[in-house]
Amino acid sequence: MLEKIKKPNDVKKIPANRLPELADEIRQFMVSSVSRTGGHLASNLGAVELTIALHYVLNLPKDKILWDVGHQSYTHKILTGRMDRFSTLRQEGGLSGFPRREESSCDSWDAGHSSNSISAALGYVRARDLRRQQYTVVSVIGDGALTGGMAYEALDNAAQLKTNFIIVLNDNNMSISGNVGGMHDYLATLRTSHAYTDLKEQVAGKLEKLHGGDEVIERIRKTKNSIKQLVIPGMLFENMGLTYLGPVDGHNISAMIRLFEDAKRINGPVIVHVKTEKGHGYAPAVRHPSRFHGTGAFDVATGIPESRGVVSWTDIFSTVMVKMGERNPDVVAVTAAMKEGTGLKRFANRFPDRFFDVGIAEEHGVTFSAGLALGGLIPVFAVYSSFLQRGFDQIMNDVCMQNLHVVFAIDRGGLVGADGKTHQGVFDLSYLTMLPGMTVMAPKNKWELSDMMKFAVAFHGPVAIRYPKGAAYSGLIECREEIVLGKGEVLRKGKKIALLAVGSMVAEAVAVAQRLEADGWNPTVVNMRFVKPLDRELLRELACDHDLFVTMEENVRCGGFGEQVLDEMKSLPEENPVHVEIIAIPDTYIHHAGRDSQLRTAGIDAETVYQRICEIL
Amino acid sequence: MLEKIKKPNDVKKIPANRLPELADEIRQFMVSSVSRTGGHLASNLGAVELTIALHYVLNLPKDKILWDVGHQSYTHKILTGRMDRFSTLRQEGGLSGFPRREESSCDSWDAGHSSNSISAALGYVRARDLRRQQYTVVSVIGDGALTGGMAYEALDNAAQLKTNFIIVLNDNNMSISGNVGGMHDYLATLRTSHAYTDLKEQVAGKLEKLHGGDEVIERIRKTKNSIKQLVIPGMLFENMGLTYLGPVDGHNISAMIRLFEDAKRINGPVIVHVKTEKGHGYAPAVRHPSRFHGTGAFDVATGIPESRGVVSWTDIFSTVMVKMGERNPDVVAVTAAMKEGTGLKRFANRFPDRFFDVGIAEEHGVTFSAGLALGGLIPVFAVYSSFLQRGFDQIMNDVCMQNLHVVFAIDRGGLVGADGKTHQGVFDLSYLTMLPGMTVMAPKNKWELSDMMKFAVAFHGPVAIRYPKGAAYSGLIECREEIVLGKGEVLRKGKKIALLAVGSMVAEAVAVAQRLEADGWNPTVVNMRFVKPLDRELLRELACDHDLFVTMEENVRCGGFGEQVLDEMKSLPEENPVHVEIIAIPDTYIHHAGRDSQLRTAGIDAETVYQRICEIL
Repeated sequence: MLEKIKKPNDVKKIPANRLPELADEIRQFMVSSVSRTGGHLASNLGAVELTIALHYVLNLPKDKILWDVGHQSYTHKILTGRMDRFSTLRQEGGLSGFPRREESSCDSWDAGHSSNSISAALGYVRARDLRRQQYTVVSVIGDGALTGGMAYEALDNAAQLKTNFIIVLNDNNMSISGNVGGMHDYLATLRTSHAYTDLKEQVAGKLEKLHGGDEVIERIRKTKNSIKQLVIPGMLFENMGLTYLGPVDGHNISAMIRLFEDAKRINGPVIVHVKTEKGHGYAPAVRHPSRFHGTGAFDVATGIPESRGVVSWTDIFSTVMVKMGERNPDVVAVTAAMKEGTGLKRFANRFPDRFFDVGIAEEHGVTFSAGLALGGLIPVFAVYSSFLQRGFDQIMNDVCMQNLHVVFAIDRGGLVGADGKTHQGVFDLSYLTMLPGMTVMAPKNKWELSDMMKFAVAFHGPVAIRYPKGAAYSGLIECREEIVLGKGEVLRKGKKIALLAVGSMVAEAVAVAQRLEADGWNPTVVNMRFVKPLDRELLRELACDHDLFVTMEENVRCGGFGEQVLDEMKSLPEENPVHVEIIAIPDTYIHHAGRDSQLRTAGIDAETVYQRICEIL
Repeated sequence: MLEKIKKPNDVKKIPANRLPELADEIRQFMVSSVSRTGGHLASNLGAVELTIALHYVLNLPKDKILWDVGHQSYTHKILTGRMDRFSTLRQEGGLSGFPRREESSCDSWDAGHSSNSISAALGYVRARDLRRQQYTVVSVIGDGALTGGMAYEALDNAAQLKTNFIIVLNDNNMSISGNVGGMHDYLATLRTSHAYTDLKEQVAGKLEKLHGGDEVIERIRKTKNSIKQLVIPGMLFENMGLTYLGPVDGHNISAMIRLFEDAKRINGPVIVHVKTEKGHGYAPAVRHPSRFHGTGAFDVATGIPESRGVVSWTDIFSTVMVKMGERNPDVVAVTAAMKEGTGLKRFANRFPDRFFDVGIAEEHGVTFSAGLALGGLIPVFAVYSSFLQRGFDQIMNDVCMQNLHVVFAIDRGGLVGADGKTHQGVFDLSYLTMLPGMTVMAPKNKWELSDMMKFAVAFHGPVAIRYPKGAAYSGLIECREEIVLGKGEVLRKGKKIALLAVGSMVAEAVAVAQRLEADGWNPTVVNMRFVKPLDRELLRELACDHDLFVTMEENVRCGGFGEQVLDEMKSLPEENPVHVEIIAIPDTYIHHAGRDSQLRTAGIDAETVYQRICEIL
């Protein structure tokens, strides 16, 4: 049946009663394809029927679907003529793992980060109405993404609307790793809300039979809000000014089609509550939705990953957190719905009282950590670099300005590979370094990550440690000088050329130095350790017997480490001018590809750096 | 009675029945004092009784009050021994207009930005419980601040709590300028919620009298959630897992004391709904709460401001927006609860359908604007620089990465004077310039702001214009070259020394140039106009016949304009080295003071710049 679907709206040619077969085929194709390429699986399996139903009811690309986060959009891609490109998923030049407007006119929103689809969709709706156009706008948002504050800002704002706008709540009872909070508990009561309809029937039925009962019913009916409170599930949404429809079984296509048709007819914002199962239809993904959230290649029959993976930076962080937790009862951990991803699962199991999952809510996560610090604890907020961007203002006002001892353990700093442009952690050195009072570090290898974490916990004041995705570097074991605030570590003392490297770039710098040595040069290699405060003393010392500084960082050039070095060198006496060559990520967004390829694209891999130095020399 | 209050908890010496007199005295003192110094008045007048009641029930500094935003904390300051310093309010070295931990041990949170107090308070609560301490934590948040998403993130998170935490909802039916959205409408129904208690009494009363009615009541009672929905106001909060108490009259001290005592006894998070009136007790402020939100000195008898004020940058923006709105029906305006502050009131009155107040919700505001652009409109998001920090991730992912034509009109860029460190708009050039695809401008004078707005609306892609607080500069009327993308404007062509100035610093640069001329130099003065893209061609040209570039910006040094120039000059051939002197704000937070004084403190005023140049020469 899948063969019949070559372009948008082809799905409508299939009779409604045969759509479940189509769903099965899509599911088999998806499991088979992702088992080879890797990708987001569990959330996509959960959204197969939901997507088919939406495509059946809507007219693409005229109508707009905005997929929140976007990692559930594979069926959407298949139904819009991109099936034959699935073997290229998340690879260089291939299909993105997220909706991309450049890929298809049916993609209305470049997703990646959470909780923003309702805001963008509301923008479409307002523009549609002002321009007197006619189309349907649908935001599809998960229950996890609904913990993000901006989703609430948008819901609150949507309430004023007098025209149609559909929000599909794809409720799988999970964010990436389990769900938390009041909204989650509330949705849980709704999921079994036949209790409410029971009550409605029973109470109203009984009242009608009673003498005088009509009067009571009339009385209730007159009080507009209260009658609703008695009989309508989803009152929280109704109270916020949205019409609530559901809940509906998210694997029953015909039921969803009926409800979506109903939703289209309503003037005003509608929330359609769809209950789905993460991983639906593929047993290993149902059993381990977290593992199959984002997966590498795996064996379809067993669900076992092809490679067991190496020891990652995240693993190292995970281990040191447990150790520090044992030694110091004041150490507590905070995550924004990333218990597994950030490596806090072991800490959470060991110290459940000292572990806080705040949901997909980085703003709150930062400020909550500030409060924990004020209360006398030592919070470690473990977070992906690109997601921490959400808490920029809070890091400034609520942590740095108040000089609070919050430790930011920033994972996925630098280029992240397959997830692509929305997930690159290449701005953190710049946006953190500009904040007065902040201390910013990056480790060269796995032992240094441990040492830096211990240093940070023993520190006073705001402090950030950023480390990349992937395998932890285990070279340079022989270099393990004590960590001292604002001091770099000279790994190799030479002359003329000094390679000044930050974090992940230290290994590259060593490789560059080896090439230069082979050419007869004697370069100095420095592991800077601190981007802020900068080791000014070391820079001045090195300036005495070096002509060329090559700064190396996995961060954008603007506002990064290299520009700080350049600014510092300016203050030196003019008689020993040092040429500063900045190796950093250029002013552009880097697309999905292998990490090595991304390093080359950005011009920050060892080979490119070596070539550039040769040109200068 | 005020004389008896010298230190924290002195208020408790006053008999409860005489507290209303105390409130009157505080109100009179506050009106009189603020009429001389200026400050936030309306919100403080609304919170007098609320604050007295809290201080009566709590034990400071052991207990913690976290004032959201913090502009309602004057009574708190008065009751904690700071009355005698009120004549120094918001002045250099004087009392801050916001709670500051450095000022008093009774200040538990350095406020300034909105919607973060619940997050921080929850941190205190978790720390208290883990450390087995005993104290009460209270967050006081306005209904306006409740539209901010992070407040919702925190409420959602607080729901899990099993121990006491009090959230006082100070509901004055206003954010800074009127309130919007679903939550606002919901609170409006609660404000008159005696209807609910009526219903409870009438319905339950009637049912009891009926034969068989008991059974119905029993049936309702058994269904835990539904009985609540029938009889309890504040169901939305109850649904989210919070206990709701109220509403209570926020000008009835004894009623509030009773309710706060009740709230202290509840295990778990409690929301106490307090209805207040902004400006209460001072007629001019009740009539014009927006004008008296933040005010300069005024005449107490009439409420009339002492100075009518000059034409501000905001006024210029206001005028050009209306003009552009007339010319182009696609131009729409977005504000985050700052209709008056950002100057959009006239646009809103003229084009009500094309004006969107999203509430205190900058994240949503940015992404909503992205959606408007996708829908074919040209959104202008007018926002204060320091508040736009909240939308940093959204500017990157939702606007720049998707290359959408959103115009950011950034008011209060640079040093802001009396509001102090939390409100300084001195990071925007850095955090915007680092974003690939962004265009960043700053006008030298009022005509240029108009020209730049027109340029920005005709542009394609993300574009930001930042301008300072206060009087629009009306000098240099003779210099009005056409705006060309990425091109600076040479105001005075000289040699050897080039002053390269951005926005507000152009006027200072002209002043510096006059001093230098008087000394016999012939400096070049450039109005850079664009911080991104940088006018590389002009820099290279100037490098031919200049030895010294002095860059001038009202922004932090790190990642700012100066460092970009420095980086650019590096690529020049070594035979014409140019010394680049960067004039920017140093790496520290600048406290409240007059704007001129802040410029001097930061070392970016004309006199200081002149002295530095003389030293170099």
